[in-house]
Amino acid sequence: MKIVIAADSYKGSATTFEVAGYIEQGIRRVHPDAAILKIPLADGGEGTVDALVSACGGRYIEQEVTGPLGSKVNAKFGLLPGDTAVVEMAAASGLPLIKEEERNPFITTTFGTGQLIKAALNEGVKTIYVGIGGSATNDGGLGMAQALGVSFKDKFGREIGFGAKALEQLDTIDISGLDVRLKDTEVLVLSDVTNPLCGDNGASYVYGPQKGASPGDLVKLDWLLRLFAEKIEQQLGVSIMDVPGAGAAGGLGAGLMAFCQAEISSGIETVLKLIGLEENLKDADLVITGEGRMDFQSTQGKAPVGVAKLAKKFGLPVIAIVGSEGEAIQDVYDHGIDLVIDIINRPLSLQEAMDQVGELTAHAGEKAIRAFQLNKK
Amino acid sequence: MKIVIAADSYKGSATTFEVAGYIEQGIRRVHPDAAILKIPLADGGEGTVDALVSACGGRYIEQEVTGPLGSKVNAKFGLLPGDTAVVEMAAASGLPLIKEEERNPFITTTFGTGQLIKAALNEGVKTIYVGIGGSATNDGGLGMAQALGVSFKDKFGREIGFGAKALEQLDTIDISGLDVRLKDTEVLVLSDVTNPLCGDNGASYVYGPQKGASPGDLVKLDWLLRLFAEKIEQQLGVSIMDVPGAGAAGGLGAGLMAFCQAEISSGIETVLKLIGLEENLKDADLVITGEGRMDFQSTQGKAPVGVAKLAKKFGLPVIAIVGSEGEAIQDVYDHGIDLVIDIINRPLSLQEAMDQVGELTAHAGEKAIRAFQLNKK
Repeated sequence: MKIVIAADSYKGSATTFEVAGYIEQGIRRVHPDAAILKIPLADGGEGTVDALVSACGGRYIEQEVTGPLGSKVNAKFGLLPGDTAVVEMAAASGLPLIKEEERNPFITTTFGTGQLIKAALNEGVKTIYVGIGGSATNDGGLGMAQALGVSFKDKFGREIGFGAKALEQLDTIDISGLDVRLKDTEVLVLSDVTNPLCGDNGASYVYGPQKGASPGDLVKLDWLLRLFAEKIEQQLGVSIMDVPGAGAAGGLGAGLMAFCQAEISSGIETVLKLIGLEENLKDADLVITGEGRMDFQSTQGKAPVGVAKLAKKFGLPVIAIVGSEGEAIQDVYDHGIDLVIDIINRPLSLQEAMDQVGELTAHAGEKAIRAFQLNKK
Repeated sequence: MKIVIAADSYKGSATTFEVAGYIEQGIRRVHPDAAILKIPLADGGEGTVDALVSACGGRYIEQEVTGPLGSKVNAKFGLLPGDTAVVEMAAASGLPLIKEEERNPFITTTFGTGQLIKAALNEGVKTIYVGIGGSATNDGGLGMAQALGVSFKDKFGREIGFGAKALEQLDTIDISGLDVRLKDTEVLVLSDVTNPLCGDNGASYVYGPQKGASPGDLVKLDWLLRLFAEKIEQQLGVSIMDVPGAGAAGGLGAGLMAFCQAEISSGIETVLKLIGLEENLKDADLVITGEGRMDFQSTQGKAPVGVAKLAKKFGLPVIAIVGSEGEAIQDVYDHGIDLVIDIINRPLSLQEAMDQVGELTAHAGEKAIRAFQLNKK
């Protein structure tokens, strides 16, 4: 019996490696000698670099860069075999890098993400995957472009500075200094969000609040990004406003498209391809996947459904072990997942569940193998 | 596909009928046309009369009796086919009949339970099952015996009154007035507890606290029951002190043995026999059982393990759907249960879980059938 475990992290609680380890513990309580293959998983967001470096046999490069609020942070990205780099924007420009009371999407910058891309270019890579998710910024990729050599000036010819608020002063964009190596480099944005840059479904309105924006701020942030897109269209001849994914990571998606000719690539599908999951499913008997919270959104570009889709190519049973269940979870059953097991097994607060995530997840892993055997006897 | 649902009540939250109905709802979300047989279940405690009256096609008799504190209460018992009655002591002498602040094991009496037994005798029954559980009393069955005609006097020849505290005055026991019909009637105490009457594992120390006894009270309550048992042994020649089950229901077990020649009969095994579960399992494909809380005690005379034992005679898979899981639940897997599914699927307080017991249990029912099918495809 070969069991493949490919579960996403339980965000804020356990990494993909930890989750798989806990599930393995539970399985071994029933089958100490089961053949268990743990494949690290991510959806293009938090944990993607770790998952890919581990699964692909890559290595880390650490780099000091400018954090979201201007102070220096140490950020790492991954170098994978095949002249490929994987960068997580959150490593340089993410919410976890700043205190909750410091959140301010008018001044946070993606400059550090641009520095990471530049560092990747220095390694001679031909492909750069940029993982999106957890951004602290709403600057449309202004800072990223600045780090890569683009000059943004006001009507007096002065550099406009950093962060969304600087966009108000923007008059001319000069790409003559843009890192030339980008021309020969494929940049792919790992994203499964399809938000346009502006409007009700845009970067500001949808993701602004979690970055510290008040309802009044959202109007202004949205307007600043619109202004940026208009200048880009006028001066570079690139229309990025309504491209699906332009609104990812506070508009970093749009900036990458405009300045790095980036394309959007489904996070989960790309990760699944890079980690070679399909190859490892061929001789499996059971697939266990999972994520922190499964709900109606889980059918839309989330990791477990991506895993299930591949597993169903081989007709394999798929169990999802999840931190908790949200609404309308039934949908996942139409997307290749055969059984959802949540780790909560008694009345617990969220904090209590997080504190005991190891034992609870192991316990759920035990249930998964017991469920699998229910009809085997 | 035939599915048998035989789940105990989730005490304080849902009856056996409700639990089975919720589980059925969940199954029908996946299999609208499944053949589902719901068999009401109980373990000899709360809900036993309802389960047996329903499963055996019996009827209720309602009777006004003396409640635990002396005021009148309406209590019902069940008449089953075959000249059989089933009485729940809690219907007449139970904790739910009094307010929390009224709990007082020195004065509560089992008199009403005796009246129910007398009412059953009036129906001409030959067998009386007495369900134990939820008692408010610690009188050793004194009140029960008084209601059935036994006279208990102090050294001045006066009736000693009611409740455990009266035992302090007990001098002579006169059974000449005891209801003669008891001679031809089999009385069986439905109990899976094996506590002796006195001592550390006795009625007072183990169950006294939940009836309102302070630590100091326990010493006295234990002494009063010991005194009662000694008088019984001296004057009736019956030694009941150390019989397993004598300590059930505040010593009512002991009183029933002494005055009604009662024997202890496993609650769950007797109920399973009376409801004819085994007969209905013969052509089943899956058995779903359950209880409110499953833990290490669940292997000791609790309903789900009893159900599983029968199911395993036919090699059937058994899933337990439980309100929540306690410690060392692994033990149940060695007792015929193949998979435990709890109804809690996200961080919830106990109260929240109880408020949503219907939907949560239906959701778990859906999981049960999905788990069952995992390997069928």
